[in-house]
Amino acid sequence: MTQNNLIVLLTDFGLSDPYVGVMKGVIKNINPGVDIVDLTHEIRHQSITEAAFCLMTSYKYFPQKSIFVCVVDPGVGSERKIILISTDKYYFLAPDNGLVSWAIENEPVQKIIWVKNSKYFLKPVSSTFHGRDIFAPAAAHLSLGLKPDLLGEEIKDIVRIPFPKPVSKDNVVTGEIIFVDHFGNLVTNISRDITGRTQASKVSLNGKTMDIKDSYQSVCAGKPLAVIGSSGYLEVSVRNGDASRYFSSKEGTKVELKVS
Amino acid sequence: MTQNNLIVLLTDFGLSDPYVGVMKGVIKNINPGVDIVDLTHEIRHQSITEAAFCLMTSYKYFPQKSIFVCVVDPGVGSERKIILISTDKYYFLAPDNGLVSWAIENEPVQKIIWVKNSKYFLKPVSSTFHGRDIFAPAAAHLSLGLKPDLLGEEIKDIVRIPFPKPVSKDNVVTGEIIFVDHFGNLVTNISRDITGRTQASKVSLNGKTMDIKDSYQSVCAGKPLAVIGSSGYLEVSVRNGDASRYFSSKEGTKVELKVS
Amino acid sequence: MTQNNLIVLLTDFGLSDPYVGVMKGVIKNINPGVDIVDLTHEIRHQSITEAAFCLMTSYKYFPQKSIFVCVVDPGVGSERKIILISTDKYYFLAPDNGLVSWAIENEPVQKIIWVKNSKYFLKPVSSTFHGRDIFAPAAAHLSLGLKPDLLGEEIKDIVRIPFPKPVSKDNVVTGEIIFVDHFGNLVTNISRDITGRTQASKVSLNGKTMDIKDSYQSVCAGKPLAVIGSSGYLEVSVRNGDASRYFSSKEGTKVELKVS
Repeated sequence: MTQNNLIVLLTDFGLSDPYVGVMKGVIKNINPGVDIVDLTHEIRHQSITEAAFCLMTSYKYFPQKSIFVCVVDPGVGSERKIILISTDKYYFLAPDNGLVSWAIENEPVQKIIWVKNSKYFLKPVSSTFHGRDIFAPAAAHLSLGLKPDLLGEEIKDIVRIPFPKPVSKDNVVTGEIIFVDHFGNLVTNISRDITGRTQASKVSLNGKTMDIKDSYQSVCAGKPLAVIGSSGYLEVSVRNGDASRYFSSKEGTKVELKVS
Repeated sequence: MTQNNLIVLLTDFGLSDPYVGVMKGVIKNINPGVDIVDLTHEIRHQSITEAAFCLMTSYKYFPQKSIFVCVVDPGVGSERKIILISTDKYYFLAPDNGLVSWAIENEPVQKIIWVKNSKYFLKPVSSTFHGRDIFAPAAAHLSLGLKPDLLGEEIKDIVRIPFPKPVSKDNVVTGEIIFVDHFGNLVTNISRDITGRTQASKVSLNGKTMDIKDSYQSVCAGKPLAVIGSSGYLEVSVRNGDASRYFSSKEGTKVELKVS
Repeated sequence: MTQNNLIVLLTDFGLSDPYVGVMKGVIKNINPGVDIVDLTHEIRHQSITEAAFCLMTSYKYFPQKSIFVCVVDPGVGSERKIILISTDKYYFLAPDNGLVSWAIENEPVQKIIWVKNSKYFLKPVSSTFHGRDIFAPAAAHLSLGLKPDLLGEEIKDIVRIPFPKPVSKDNVVTGEIIFVDHFGNLVTNISRDITGRTQASKVSLNGKTMDIKDSYQSVCAGKPLAVIGSSGYLEVSVRNGDASRYFSSKEGTKVELKVS
């Protein structure tokens, strides 16, 4: 029986080159019936943490048994492993560089396979484009129902990147911006749990303080606010504007939550 | 029987964030067999009129029963309605902000539903990403054959934005640029009907006058011309060039048609 | 029997306008079951050679019988022909401007059809958007199994662009940069065959000389190297960096290979 899991692509390849299209060609050549969805290909060049955050906040909206193919891979061509992580609900195929660490924090991991069985690779394997030569064909074979074990050897340890947790001291929780979106919204690492628990109502960023509101409409156009964003994390936004420009802020900028 | 209307997405979300990918995940989770096409996600940030123009000039090229999911939504999280408009041939799901007004001017409207039945929404509904929590699941259920009435309550009145009609005075028709495309072509609000009726042969823009030609090849490379564009509206172009730069023009710039 | 070849799109239309989406609408309207993959839509505006290079280095990764729809078409609306080239394995639909020349150098051509049977076009055919009015419907009909001959008349001669071959003199092979990718990698016209045959180990670009290495990891982060890229051509790269900025280089810049 032909199985047809959804394949979801997450890379920093951009869409201006033919690289993503070629990966899809390789996949369709092996499994013409499989469906492919782009999560995004505009991860900041080689930013493993940006990819990790996008994956963490997105994967659970996809159908069970989806195969996430994540290629943000500064170590391509080196000895870094390629791994396939099977959880109860999903497959994650990625370089072993921490990209998947945040996504699997709440997903029971069943098995981790070091993908090394070249039988399922394109030959010759280039040293610069494993997305085409290894990731795409491995995912396509998986989508046809190939058992993960056949792709390589089981391992126990993988590279993990710690999620940057906010720090509490006195009556202040200090977090940071971990993602800036296309609208200029500044997504922080301060989760809904923390704002809920602390009953905090004010946030400071670059010397400006603003209220935590329920929606953009609680302030006038052009005015800043903080809001629990769609990812479940506190975001600093400007209604009908660009908070990233308004605050001259980017990834890494500190954000303070004043606990009442 | 499973119905599988095509779902067409039109947003200002861009492709650099995972938002569009997540919407597709939500849709595929509800209806794995449905086909999704991107109309564009690069509508200028919150530009309802640009989205309205894109939709108006594009929808009729899609198969009957296509479901257009249009999310340019500065009012997300406010009391603005989300509406589903069924015409004889299509479904349009959009915020009630006028986005659909131009598309339905020539489409007999069968019914307008105020989409409010949270049974078909993702829970909890965020205040900032209704594309994911309301639009995507509602469209997916529709594509499975859900009756529009089940999504909410019928209403009669919606927000309508008047199409900016050109003005005739003496022997001059004054219109404006309503869309600038990726090539720098300046699309005006002067339709083929008007140029045909007036037998006009010359157009002025920012003090320069040029002829209305049948195709780019009627002038030399680097030279400006006016031409009835693929949308059925008069466009000012530069052959093998960028008219937007050549004329330092953008949306709103006045264009004059000299009637013979 | 319904045939469903994969349709692959390659254009310079960008993704910010609805043009590509509309082409997909036209295709789905004729063949709802066909699969469409974007190779890329970000070919440099009207750059036939960039499109030719992308196609040449990408097509063979796609399933046999794929239909490549290539629309980089500065001559749209002129007397230039639209051609369909059937090879043993693929279909290429493109303006007769040389775009397909490099791809078919190693593909036995079966037949070339001048696409002119307006029965299969959208009417009226605009003078500016043949992608929508001719290419998309022709490809969709082909994907349904239409015989190529029915699209027009067989011809023998097409426009061919010579591939810019490197020049050998004394102990130096002089090539040039023919493609700059999204990462800033500088892809040259010097193939793996040439570097292999000449046993060359050093490359010069803008006065700087670097070694040909097996992978990015052979140099430190931020350092330049040359490497046989995934396309089979020599590339100049900067590990974890942008070679295009590092060398202030772009398409056309000369590259020298020092033969040992």
